[in-house]
Amino acid sequence: MSALEKLLRPRSVAVVGASADPAKTSGRPVAYLRKHGFQGAIYPVNPKASEIDGLACYPDVRSLPQAPDVAIVLLGADRTQQAVRELADIGAGAAIVLASGYSETGEAGARRQRELREAAGAMRILGPNTIGLVNLTDRIVLSASGALEMDGLVSGGIGLVSQSGGILGALLSRATARGIGFSKLISTSNEVDLDLADFVDALADDPATRVIALYVESIRNPRTFRAAARKAARAGKPVVAFKIGRSDSGAQAAASHTGALAGADAMYGALFEETGIIRAQTFSDLLDIPLALASGRPLGGRRVAILTSTGGAGTLVADSLGVAGFALPAPDARCGAALRALQTGDHAALDRNPIDVTLAGLQPELLRGAIRIVQESDQYDAMVVIVGSSGVARPELMAGALKDTLALSDKPLLAYISPHAPQAAETLGRYGIPAFHTPESVSAALSAMWQARPRGLPAQAEAVAPAPRAPVDCPGQGQLNEAQAKALFARFGIPGVREIVVHTEEQAAEAARQLGPRVVLKLLSSEITHKSDVGGVAVGVPAEHVAARLRRMADDVQRHTGRRPDAFLVQEMVTGAAEVIVGLRKDPLGAAILLGMGGVVAELIRDTTLLLLPEDGAALTPAQVEAALRRLKTWPLLDGYRGRERADVPALVEAVLAFARMAQALQDRLAEAEINPLFVRRMGQGVCAADGVAVLDHPRAP
Amino acid sequence: MSALEKLLRPRSVAVVGASADPAKTSGRPVAYLRKHGFQGAIYPVNPKASEIDGLACYPDVRSLPQAPDVAIVLLGADRTQQAVRELADIGAGAAIVLASGYSETGEAGARRQRELREAAGAMRILGPNTIGLVNLTDRIVLSASGALEMDGLVSGGIGLVSQSGGILGALLSRATARGIGFSKLISTSNEVDLDLADFVDALADDPATRVIALYVESIRNPRTFRAAARKAARAGKPVVAFKIGRSDSGAQAAASHTGALAGADAMYGALFEETGIIRAQTFSDLLDIPLALASGRPLGGRRVAILTSTGGAGTLVADSLGVAGFALPAPDARCGAALRALQTGDHAALDRNPIDVTLAGLQPELLRGAIRIVQESDQYDAMVVIVGSSGVARPELMAGALKDTLALSDKPLLAYISPHAPQAAETLGRYGIPAFHTPESVSAALSAMWQARPRGLPAQAEAVAPAPRAPVDCPGQGQLNEAQAKALFARFGIPGVREIVVHTEEQAAEAARQLGPRVVLKLLSSEITHKSDVGGVAVGVPAEHVAARLRRMADDVQRHTGRRPDAFLVQEMVTGAAEVIVGLRKDPLGAAILLGMGGVVAELIRDTTLLLLPEDGAALTPAQVEAALRRLKTWPLLDGYRGRERADVPALVEAVLAFARMAQALQDRLAEAEINPLFVRRMGQGVCAADGVAVLDHPRAP
Repeated sequence: MSALEKLLRPRSVAVVGASADPAKTSGRPVAYLRKHGFQGAIYPVNPKASEIDGLACYPDVRSLPQAPDVAIVLLGADRTQQAVRELADIGAGAAIVLASGYSETGEAGARRQRELREAAGAMRILGPNTIGLVNLTDRIVLSASGALEMDGLVSGGIGLVSQSGGILGALLSRATARGIGFSKLISTSNEVDLDLADFVDALADDPATRVIALYVESIRNPRTFRAAARKAARAGKPVVAFKIGRSDSGAQAAASHTGALAGADAMYGALFEETGIIRAQTFSDLLDIPLALASGRPLGGRRVAILTSTGGAGTLVADSLGVAGFALPAPDARCGAALRALQTGDHAALDRNPIDVTLAGLQPELLRGAIRIVQESDQYDAMVVIVGSSGVARPELMAGALKDTLALSDKPLLAYISPHAPQAAETLGRYGIPAFHTPESVSAALSAMWQARPRGLPAQAEAVAPAPRAPVDCPGQGQLNEAQAKALFARFGIPGVREIVVHTEEQAAEAARQLGPRVVLKLLSSEITHKSDVGGVAVGVPAEHVAARLRRMADDVQRHTGRRPDAFLVQEMVTGAAEVIVGLRKDPLGAAILLGMGGVVAELIRDTTLLLLPEDGAALTPAQVEAALRRLKTWPLLDGYRGRERADVPALVEAVLAFARMAQALQDRLAEAEINPLFVRRMGQGVCAADGVAVLDHPRAP
Repeated sequence: MSALEKLLRPRSVAVVGASADPAKTSGRPVAYLRKHGFQGAIYPVNPKASEIDGLACYPDVRSLPQAPDVAIVLLGADRTQQAVRELADIGAGAAIVLASGYSETGEAGARRQRELREAAGAMRILGPNTIGLVNLTDRIVLSASGALEMDGLVSGGIGLVSQSGGILGALLSRATARGIGFSKLISTSNEVDLDLADFVDALADDPATRVIALYVESIRNPRTFRAAARKAARAGKPVVAFKIGRSDSGAQAAASHTGALAGADAMYGALFEETGIIRAQTFSDLLDIPLALASGRPLGGRRVAILTSTGGAGTLVADSLGVAGFALPAPDARCGAALRALQTGDHAALDRNPIDVTLAGLQPELLRGAIRIVQESDQYDAMVVIVGSSGVARPELMAGALKDTLALSDKPLLAYISPHAPQAAETLGRYGIPAFHTPESVSAALSAMWQARPRGLPAQAEAVAPAPRAPVDCPGQGQLNEAQAKALFARFGIPGVREIVVHTEEQAAEAARQLGPRVVLKLLSSEITHKSDVGGVAVGVPAEHVAARLRRMADDVQRHTGRRPDAFLVQEMVTGAAEVIVGLRKDPLGAAILLGMGGVVAELIRDTTLLLLPEDGAALTPAQVEAALRRLKTWPLLDGYRGRERADVPALVEAVLAFARMAQALQDRLAEAEINPLFVRRMGQGVCAADGVAVLDHPRAP
């Protein structure tokens, strides 16, 4: 049994610092263990008590009768380290450390946290600053969360990992009121040892867990997290994440243009995208989406029937589903005839969707019949039943009828509760029927089911073709000039525009004759990034005017910078091509390729996307790159929008793959890289880099 | 006392078709009137009973002892018309008609509804198909809604008008559970007579109503609705609307390009914008936003303090507020010192925001002190207090402390409830402290308070300068050709590009010499709208090639259409100008000007906005037009974005005003009109229409 298995399913639990007073936080864990039915051994440790709640109490860790599978440490930060050391010494499986006062408080706390790690040695730690762990599958409660005062905790298929203990308690409390069950709830908080990734990995193996919900503040180990998320995907367990820190992105002012377009939150988006994680857009979604997914019913299409006996709420849900892209076809002749045969009342509206079965709101027989007809119709892929005012007075009435029909079909069956009807909600939850209180949550849940539908794993990096990791001989270091940067890109397979470096008016004239009839003339400098700002770019210069234009450019640049430039680039004019930005984005979460459409409007609407590089040097696949491009709002511009010629997307994909290979080959040596614009010509004509930036760091000592 | 006043505050109520069985829908109104404390006279009418619940029952309407202020008609549609006629005859103030089976069921129902209208004569009708009206200010319940089974209905400052009876019941039920009070709730449903606008108007006058909430399916009388919404704005009463039908917009395929860009839902957006109505984005917002606004506390800025004793939830709310654009400054030295002096515990974090006052979660004295310090600090404009797990076990503890501090300041004070704590929510609601369950609702509420802050009325049409309504002598009718359309626009003050109509190669060559060196050559036709599709547009033609190009164009068009064209336009080439679309959009809701940026990317992202024309021929103001332009995502392109030259926005505004004057002057005669593109040159250089479409209908008989 691994330490993590012991932590999740201990047979013995020591509670270090347990209090005999259940009103105190330190009195809770023993009380909660027993209240919620733990069957193993409980060892309270407290030198000031001989027994707690009838259990023998031990004066210290060394006096314990056996090494516990888990110890809950309730001491203050000052005494925790010693207790953890002793627990490690006696061979305890894992310690759950509740004390705060560690890395969340500043430098002294961070030092204390490092010391805690050392004291633990090989023993695993959950925390510090955690509220603990709750295993509802086996009714083992290793937590001081006040939410555990509740009776009637429900075990179910949702495994929750939260980086906040308070949020864990809030979700447990809210879910229980709705009859929604969890398998495991774990608060990882400071993550001195065990972290999000460890528990995603463990829950992927946990038979009781059908869906994994994550409350994320920051992913500390992206490499193991990505591996764990993929493992969950392979196990067929959807992962749903709500991440905060979205508004900090604006504050992360980045120097490069690429940085300004995509903030750190976008990196999380790229990570979730890559690993197939469903992102909860609102906090409520973090409960509502797992609830729907835990039903285990596959959504085979996007045609939804709404069954209602109250017009307003049905229309409300229909509108929300329509906005989310679902279709609500009216019953066909056969389905309509079957519904009419039920005789659901004079005012029933059976020829439209929402299907209004007036009387069925109060007659379970009718309701069961109507549900059966709709679920058996091949017209619909899912069904939403509206619970109206009868849900308040007679909560069991409709919930029971819905329960009876669950076995008829494996299509998703959801409920929307229109009035305040907490008992109906709880009953439906306990019956395994996902019940929602807002029309938007119905849409979010069905959209997530659609996203999570079985269709193989998300496009993944090919582990078979690792990029070269050998050091590459790079030209110079620091900021490269434009010609050097494009030469570097070309070495990895990205063609540049035809261009010639010139130093004199005569050379420029000769170059323009080769590249003309019109050319682009640019200042060539490794120091000046924004060439336009100093008058260093001229477009569409007739070949015969290049010499004069160069002289004027030299004057302009000298006036702006105080130095007369001595190097220029003459480039071919490329017209009629689409313009794309390809950039490298580095972040604590990993390295990513930024893709976006060029042009001022695309920039204004920040229409970019990020594609995370595989963490182990594996190559991106063409399918991943094309999928990323298709996420751009402006993708149709490449795809023949409104009769335009289709752009050479295969060549663009190949160039992006080459850019990724470059980033992976150069690794830390490549500090910055961007092509802006990359011209994408029409299909079959290829791409070429028109401008480029690259910054190289010193090679690391081997 | 007007009929509407009688309806809202009747002294006598007849219940026609009342049943003695309170389990039946027709038994509810009498039972509810009494249950909720109606003090006036109640007259049940039913030929089969002599008394109902101790009240004398009358065999028919004509036997009533007096004409009632209001009659609730509970009969089926077949018998309702007769009852309504009799009520009108005896001089009843108004009838509330619950029967369904009218316009919602098709043509026969629509005819029945017209007959009902006739039967009522001068008597006002609410309904049919309504669930009725609830006046909680005076505890007068004129409704059969099952939601009225509840005890403890709360009266408050929110006036609700709903076009769905079921939604009225759902909102009443949900609000009551949260201690949220209404002044009046009215379900207008089929609106054969009284409609949304009538009740917005009445609630604007109602002293008990502080904010008006609307559930909108369709606005039948836009003119009176706009007037009523403005009246509410003048009375200082914010109006919050949730509108469904958003997903139908896609289905309304419109023939013209303008129509394809802006659907009918966008017209509602324009109407709400014009009248200062706050649009609820989610259904929950329809309760949460009015709740916040009903507190009557003005939001003077966007700096928010979060006070918490549980870290996770505070961070969650902070993140949501950050996304919504609020600032969360840390306490300054003075505020921090005052907080520290409270001694809120070792783990308190008082130098950041959320301000974590650990112990204050359980000690009302500390909490009151902390709230006082923050509310008195001029650092903050509003405050959100997080209710943690103590809200479950001791709901009164924190709610009471918050209540005690209400008088300290008139700054907004909101609560976020982290766990499931229904009793805390209800207590806070009753104390007048807006309490929310999702971080997004806190943000939505504060954003709405910011939108509704006192700052004068929204920019309004100038009633002083009515546009000419006299018939204008228009050239021809039907679809105009491009030159005619632009001539029409020019008559209203919108300059066109310089252009000459030509019929021969020689005329074209001569025209190009005048307009060259390069020109645009176009087919001129009133039949072919998409000239490019038939080869009818050539841009940048050198003057010396125009004759040959015309010949080729004639060939191309002939090949595409089978007819050789005999008219062309030679136009000056305009380069370097921004391109804007200005179009006319007609809709049941009114006429509007569509504004958008030209270019394929702007089209792709549907970056357009609508500006509703004033309903009484009043002129738009320049401020309204500029505000609409500023709503475009691409507005910065006109405004000097990234060093571009600023465009001539004053000339653009003037052109839009001229376009609006044209639409108002021609009224129904102008079926379609669009300028695309309108070139906007750099500041001081003006605008010119490069292409235009206009369709004129027959003049109406006078």
